[in-house]
Amino acid sequence: MINFASDNYSGVHPRIMQALTAANTGCACAYGDDTYTADADAAFKALFGDDIASYVMVNGTGANVLGLAALMRPYHAVVCSEIAHINVDETGAPENVLGSKLLTVDSKDGKLTPKDVEQFLFAKGVVHHSQPKVISITQSTEYGAVYTPEEVKALGDFAREHDMYLHMDGARIANAAAALGVDVASFTRDAGVHVLSFGGTKNGMMFGEAVVFFDKKLAEGFEYLRKQNLQLLSKMRYASCQFVELLRDDLWLQTARNSNAMAKRLAEGLAGIPGVEICNKVDVNSVFAIISPEHQEELHKQFAFYEWNEATHEVRLVCSFDTTEQEVDSFIAAAKAICR
Amino acid sequence: MINFASDNYSGVHPRIMQALTAANTGCACAYGDDTYTADADAAFKALFGDDIASYVMVNGTGANVLGLAALMRPYHAVVCSEIAHINVDETGAPENVLGSKLLTVDSKDGKLTPKDVEQFLFAKGVVHHSQPKVISITQSTEYGAVYTPEEVKALGDFAREHDMYLHMDGARIANAAAALGVDVASFTRDAGVHVLSFGGTKNGMMFGEAVVFFDKKLAEGFEYLRKQNLQLLSKMRYASCQFVELLRDDLWLQTARNSNAMAKRLAEGLAGIPGVEICNKVDVNSVFAIISPEHQEELHKQFAFYEWNEATHEVRLVCSFDTTEQEVDSFIAAAKAICR
Amino acid sequence: MINFASDNYSGVHPRIMQALTAANTGCACAYGDDTYTADADAAFKALFGDDIASYVMVNGTGANVLGLAALMRPYHAVVCSEIAHINVDETGAPENVLGSKLLTVDSKDGKLTPKDVEQFLFAKGVVHHSQPKVISITQSTEYGAVYTPEEVKALGDFAREHDMYLHMDGARIANAAAALGVDVASFTRDAGVHVLSFGGTKNGMMFGEAVVFFDKKLAEGFEYLRKQNLQLLSKMRYASCQFVELLRDDLWLQTARNSNAMAKRLAEGLAGIPGVEICNKVDVNSVFAIISPEHQEELHKQFAFYEWNEATHEVRLVCSFDTTEQEVDSFIAAAKAICR
Amino acid sequence: MINFASDNYSGVHPRIMQALTAANTGCACAYGDDTYTADADAAFKALFGDDIASYVMVNGTGANVLGLAALMRPYHAVVCSEIAHINVDETGAPENVLGSKLLTVDSKDGKLTPKDVEQFLFAKGVVHHSQPKVISITQSTEYGAVYTPEEVKALGDFAREHDMYLHMDGARIANAAAALGVDVASFTRDAGVHVLSFGGTKNGMMFGEAVVFFDKKLAEGFEYLRKQNLQLLSKMRYASCQFVELLRDDLWLQTARNSNAMAKRLAEGLAGIPGVEICNKVDVNSVFAIISPEHQEELHKQFAFYEWNEATHEVRLVCSFDTTEQEVDSFIAAAKAICR
Repeated sequence: MINFASDNYSGVHPRIMQALTAANTGCACAYGDDTYTADADAAFKALFGDDIASYVMVNGTGANVLGLAALMRPYHAVVCSEIAHINVDETGAPENVLGSKLLTVDSKDGKLTPKDVEQFLFAKGVVHHSQPKVISITQSTEYGAVYTPEEVKALGDFAREHDMYLHMDGARIANAAAALGVDVASFTRDAGVHVLSFGGTKNGMMFGEAVVFFDKKLAEGFEYLRKQNLQLLSKMRYASCQFVELLRDDLWLQTARNSNAMAKRLAEGLAGIPGVEICNKVDVNSVFAIISPEHQEELHKQFAFYEWNEATHEVRLVCSFDTTEQEVDSFIAAAKAICR
Repeated sequence: MINFASDNYSGVHPRIMQALTAANTGCACAYGDDTYTADADAAFKALFGDDIASYVMVNGTGANVLGLAALMRPYHAVVCSEIAHINVDETGAPENVLGSKLLTVDSKDGKLTPKDVEQFLFAKGVVHHSQPKVISITQSTEYGAVYTPEEVKALGDFAREHDMYLHMDGARIANAAAALGVDVASFTRDAGVHVLSFGGTKNGMMFGEAVVFFDKKLAEGFEYLRKQNLQLLSKMRYASCQFVELLRDDLWLQTARNSNAMAKRLAEGLAGIPGVEICNKVDVNSVFAIISPEHQEELHKQFAFYEWNEATHEVRLVCSFDTTEQEVDSFIAAAKAICR
Repeated sequence: MINFASDNYSGVHPRIMQALTAANTGCACAYGDDTYTADADAAFKALFGDDIASYVMVNGTGANVLGLAALMRPYHAVVCSEIAHINVDETGAPENVLGSKLLTVDSKDGKLTPKDVEQFLFAKGVVHHSQPKVISITQSTEYGAVYTPEEVKALGDFAREHDMYLHMDGARIANAAAALGVDVASFTRDAGVHVLSFGGTKNGMMFGEAVVFFDKKLAEGFEYLRKQNLQLLSKMRYASCQFVELLRDDLWLQTARNSNAMAKRLAEGLAGIPGVEICNKVDVNSVFAIISPEHQEELHKQFAFYEWNEATHEVRLVCSFDTTEQEVDSFIAAAKAICR
Repeated sequence: MINFASDNYSGVHPRIMQALTAANTGCACAYGDDTYTADADAAFKALFGDDIASYVMVNGTGANVLGLAALMRPYHAVVCSEIAHINVDETGAPENVLGSKLLTVDSKDGKLTPKDVEQFLFAKGVVHHSQPKVISITQSTEYGAVYTPEEVKALGDFAREHDMYLHMDGARIANAAAALGVDVASFTRDAGVHVLSFGGTKNGMMFGEAVVFFDKKLAEGFEYLRKQNLQLLSKMRYASCQFVELLRDDLWLQTARNSNAMAKRLAEGLAGIPGVEICNKVDVNSVFAIISPEHQEELHKQFAFYEWNEATHEVRLVCSFDTTEQEVDSFIAAAKAICR
């Protein structure tokens, strides 16, 4: 079975696996008082500047929900896209852990604009309504779209004007950085993001995400939040060493460049096949395409992928750090043979 | 620095590391729909019988708190020892995640008896009081004591008589099983435990614990609880494969036998040293001893360990799967030289 | 200032006030162990049958949220209308107290159909999604619409087919009962509602709502939920005696008939005034009408009312148990004079 | 049945009932935008100074728990007495609403000292432990003891030294004020209390408590907290008008003086009766006495009261604003006849 289902169906990048093995020597202080964790923090500071605070987390839901928790009280609300991972794919973890409401914006590609957020401001100061406090965006989005630094900055400025915070779910931030070809700080810290989930797992790590605070004051007490909400690992070195390796020599960008390039190759190969309709502009590592149920069924015999929209039969094809040209070409060939 | 601080200062057992490397081939379904997770479940069924449900979790706090969550509503209470990990070392995660009160019993060695629980029954049926619903015990306890199967069964019977559940925090269940020398089912399933946290991390794994339900009806919806509470890993195979290896050929007992034996050796070596007073009966892998602050300071130059009780200067010395006779003997020699 | 702002701007019905005074003799057991509370329960049983459980609550948000809490675990979701009080006007209390997601349906008049709920069923059994478990409807709706018994039954049947529950927010159930002219049980218990919030405050009480369980098993532990969630009054007799009086000799229907009739009179009087566009079919006690901002401003000098939709300048005019024909006619006269 | 069971078995003071009737004229803005609520706030400012913020709440548990919520994040802990109402009599509402741990001090009379709190400071800065953040004291305590202004100040100073807050549960603050005979500000605001629950229900109101913030910054967002946690009444005027009347012409102190005097009379009358052993120094309105189960049973035929301690057969006899000398004397006479 060839994987176009998800970047978390992939395994661990060989360099990461090697780093894990290398970290397995002797004892180390638990819960983050180890040199690997200090090195990971230093690596994030090298990316974003010294005046940040970084925390290694277990998984993406944990990173998102607790990054938000640092910004909110339960009577606050998060504005996000209807298709945001925090809204759709975290089994209500935000509502449960934050005790807060998500206010959702209908958005085909998952991107938000200040105008989208504006509609919720009427609630400000009215005691009966959850108070909009955080704008949460996903970079790149769940639909494979990328915010430009300017677009992020517009939201960052808007947030500040309205006493709000800007949160970024960067589960696929590497794909965005690779696609934009700009410094990652330019569309995060410099664009006014307050808190970032920096993804690792979808980009070749075994597990682990990081929460990066660009305003360190907001991180006050975060170590307790992390522990109390089940996201602190005892043998932390094994999470941290992965980030050290991922961020060394731009490995994180190399892996993302491959997954992006494979998606582009896939989209180009599929374009023009009669029974395949490409739906998205392929900026990063996913291709969305309408394929009939019968053709999907045939393709599923060789390839793993998900139907994104049951009503329209739009499927999502995700490429990974380890997706090969051969795999892509075999999908194209199969589609050519089947979808006619 | 030689580690007597904690069994989670230790690294990963070489066989586990090997299993992780071996699992790193090709893609696998995420979130537990992989063969490693099926194999881990089969391994737990081999230990406990087919009529159980097992769930691999990220960490011990997650396993404990969510195992309890499956048994309770927020107005229920958990009866536990004052020194229980859930009471002392989880930063209020039980109160936060369960929304419930812990009712604590003063207990030097961390063990509970039915009589200890009885004192809370007056609250039953009184609307102003949290309703005692779960008895949570730790096997072996935070003070290194072990429940016999009969002692567990007395609590299991008591729980059933009073419409309560029995929960076991088995972060160090391997040490208990090795110490008792009996079938692990005899002091869990057969003794009336409803839900068990089966420890992995403290016994040579990189990360991962399991929640085992001996009454499958209680597990209804647990997969959603796990996800919503941030304990579901995407690349689950890397947690599950560790359990498969740990439970293969009794590796989990071999590792525990070593840590238990090293603690026994340590206690025997320290006995009789004038400035060292052994406080506990060393059943498993920890030695508790009173050592003066000045002597502690000297010993800390070579050895990592924690003061368990600041008032009495009682320290805790923990041995691990990878603690060696040499390490133990070097501590004994140092203590002999220093504590006089 | 004449009140068309809300039925909770009104005072307490004289008979209710008299009942409160009458209850103020001597001491009474606290927290519901009093004869008034027993009498209130008997009054609800007279309406709905003996096999119910009723609980007097402090307020509508408390009644709604805890009635839902009895039906759900945090990973479940509630399906409701976009304009449902629980979604819009409870400051995120459902998300906070339940820890759960609301799944909302766009609905101009606030009514739901089985088809509206069906769209969420795809999530059933998928671990990443909150699990739809409760359908919550408001009778009469926030937009003044009424479900027929058949419409409720269709939802009750749908709920049972899909292992879901049906919850009814009856903050204005009296208005619905008066409008339908049928037995209240016919569109609640008999139509498959599991749990009902029975409104008191908006219909002439000083405070107090009730939660009525039509399936008593679902009420297990509800007294603890009520206390733990801050909704238990100590001097309960003063809440219960109000319900006893409200339900005596159909006072609750008399009051609702007045507010409904006044709204009808208001709508008829406003119809045909050039600058006033009636938007809703006036089934119960509220009239929704588009009036220009300038005309609103003029009217506000004499009358209290709220703008329902800032974008369209639709206002809501609510009549109460104590709204008089004179008050209605004075509004009509003012509108005739102003809105031209 | 004569009431010595609780001050909330009593009814509503005639002046309060009169105030409620008087408030029942015409319509009023809901949710606190009414003149009665403004007047209640002014009355609290007259007691405590202008630089406070006051909020009328539904009940004592609501006032306590949300007053605490304003001071804490879930990973913080509250230090309180073992017998504190928040620990014993609120069905785990603090744990559920705050998501936090209570750290309890064994205290026969319910009073805390700085030394009692000090034992928990070791946890400060340790990520595995809930962080002690609030000291909560009850004035007068659940065992009828009163803190002097100096004793409160010692705790207030201690709290500030250790970056903590001081919370006071003043469900019976009137009894304390009456007993001490000093200005109520002297043992609250001036003694360093940050947040106070000011009791109404136990002192002759129908329902209603207030939360008073002596540091207004701490009240930020409190109106949302109150609403989200089910403690906002729609027809708020009926809660607020009660406080206006209670605080007018020192009614609150007059009522408390009666209940205190009746308790004193009761204790003096019971002293010397052979089968009755008075256990507490009767500072306020409750007498604690050991009476044998057989004698209790006889007394229960005429008098309502609770056994405070099942093991020692200590009973609690509470006097109220409406307890009469005759009622007290009849209890004394009965005790003389029965307890011999």
